[in-house]
Amino acid sequence: MTDAPAGSGIPARSGRGDRVQIREVGPRDGFQNEPEVIPTAAKVELVECLARTGLRRLEVTSFVRADVIPQLADGADVLRSADIPGEVAVSVLVPNERGLQAALPLREHFSEISVFMSATESHNRANVNRSVEESRQGLERVIASAVGEGLRCEGVISVAFGCPYEGEVDPARVFEIAGELADAGCSEIGFGDTTGMANPAQVGQFFAAAFERLPDVELTAHFHNTRGQGLANALAALEAGVRSFESSFGELGGCPVPAGATGNVASEDLVSMLHEMGHETGIDLSGLLDCARRAQEVLRRPLGSHVLTAGPVDWHRA
Amino acid sequence: MTDAPAGSGIPARSGRGDRVQIREVGPRDGFQNEPEVIPTAAKVELVECLARTGLRRLEVTSFVRADVIPQLADGADVLRSADIPGEVAVSVLVPNERGLQAALPLREHFSEISVFMSATESHNRANVNRSVEESRQGLERVIASAVGEGLRCEGVISVAFGCPYEGEVDPARVFEIAGELADAGCSEIGFGDTTGMANPAQVGQFFAAAFERLPDVELTAHFHNTRGQGLANALAALEAGVRSFESSFGELGGCPVPAGATGNVASEDLVSMLHEMGHETGIDLSGLLDCARRAQEVLRRPLGSHVLTAGPVDWHRA
Repeated sequence: MTDAPAGSGIPARSGRGDRVQIREVGPRDGFQNEPEVIPTAAKVELVECLARTGLRRLEVTSFVRADVIPQLADGADVLRSADIPGEVAVSVLVPNERGLQAALPLREHFSEISVFMSATESHNRANVNRSVEESRQGLERVIASAVGEGLRCEGVISVAFGCPYEGEVDPARVFEIAGELADAGCSEIGFGDTTGMANPAQVGQFFAAAFERLPDVELTAHFHNTRGQGLANALAALEAGVRSFESSFGELGGCPVPAGATGNVASEDLVSMLHEMGHETGIDLSGLLDCARRAQEVLRRPLGSHVLTAGPVDWHRA
Repeated sequence: MTDAPAGSGIPARSGRGDRVQIREVGPRDGFQNEPEVIPTAAKVELVECLARTGLRRLEVTSFVRADVIPQLADGADVLRSADIPGEVAVSVLVPNERGLQAALPLREHFSEISVFMSATESHNRANVNRSVEESRQGLERVIASAVGEGLRCEGVISVAFGCPYEGEVDPARVFEIAGELADAGCSEIGFGDTTGMANPAQVGQFFAAAFERLPDVELTAHFHNTRGQGLANALAALEAGVRSFESSFGELGGCPVPAGATGNVASEDLVSMLHEMGHETGIDLSGLLDCARRAQEVLRRPLGSHVLTAGPVDWHRA
């Protein structure tokens, strides 16, 4: 009862019908950023809750070293245990060849992998202790192996709109990396505004150019709300033609820096905006809010999503 | 050192130069929503801090009944005491004729008044216990008197994009009220998304129509971030041609409902987005952040503005 009424004829809901894909990344990007390790059973419960909201893309975990990210050490167990409807494309994050080898025995439980590297030397070095070129060469092998296994690959480029170490990032450099990842076999490229430096003017021009340069791959936007512009940037991307986004329920994760800052755009806030604008996501907003409320109980703290706090727009209150 | 570098040539900063007016409403809309009355001296200090940021429009207080809003009972003292540069247009909110009569002895201390009414019967009744028609007739007299005193008038229309009691609000009805206020003498009409129900598609179409219907008055947008869409709505308004906004430093005020929800868009967040997009506001963002930090000290609690928490984008860190 929270979505816009059909055929109301007021400007709010024109433009309806354009389908937008949202990949929920909270179980990976959110859970890995929690100071305490979430119990496996609670992870499974939340993953299953999300998988029943009607979303079609769900990043469930990552295959990273347990000593580096103990929060996701039980990734294999979560994958094995979670009961996920067949229409949901499950993805796992894979940092390198070792991660892929760890993931492949669970092959029946996922259909997509995400690989990642940064657009700048400084951020890539800080994040994975490799040069951009080393990451690129390593990921080419990962992607080739994954494609050989029949997996769909998303290549995520971090700090695509600005780098906390290097400042401006030349879009041409980002597109060059994106082209290499696409050539290696990625059918989707994600562009991350990892520390929330993007602005809508930049985003609009970035994606207009990206569609020119990368006509044969799906382009996905991943924004952070660090400076409050997350949904404004999503709007600019949408206007530029982007129809694929990544976000995190409950506004979880996204490595917020400094402490107390906002990280990922909340999935509820993004879904609410898209629905109010007349776009379809397939996601049941009230079901998504139930998942976020359950996450609040598991984490024993209030989460930052606006729609979770204020409730959805109710046009039917009269 | 926080704004975009000149002539950098990257997409982020094209489109620069378009001037955007921001009316800071925190000293009225923010201070009146605080549970504790802020001491007069602290109000004066914060008003003077804001007045030195380079902003050109500042709503300092309102002339409402002290028994209804004791938080602003010292409005006359604040107006008399605050040392405000001559280039800053000071406005006061005036609810009715009695308010105007209370304000006029302070005439030398302000140059603009804001009057307000709601677009719907239910909200107007709940807010001022009058029908829309009673409010309109009363405000016509207030506006005529104020214009006679040489004051500039802004007519603010609340719940212009949706009403918490009645749901959808027909834009034609909003434009009708706006036209009446303009005919009465308002040179500026403010449209308030009082409970954060607007979405960017609606906002874009609303203002496109508003510019058609109201070609001779300044159109001002006042958004709330209740559902996280505040800056996305500001972007949509900007794209539709709006160059005048109202916002509140520190994300103060805006009658957040329910408790804990967000109210007004934070001025820092709006200014940051506009500057990053290449627009001029005349406002020194770091000075504005100083005011918000001082407000945190006065109120002894952290405020919700994103840029206050995360800091401005620093393109020069490299």
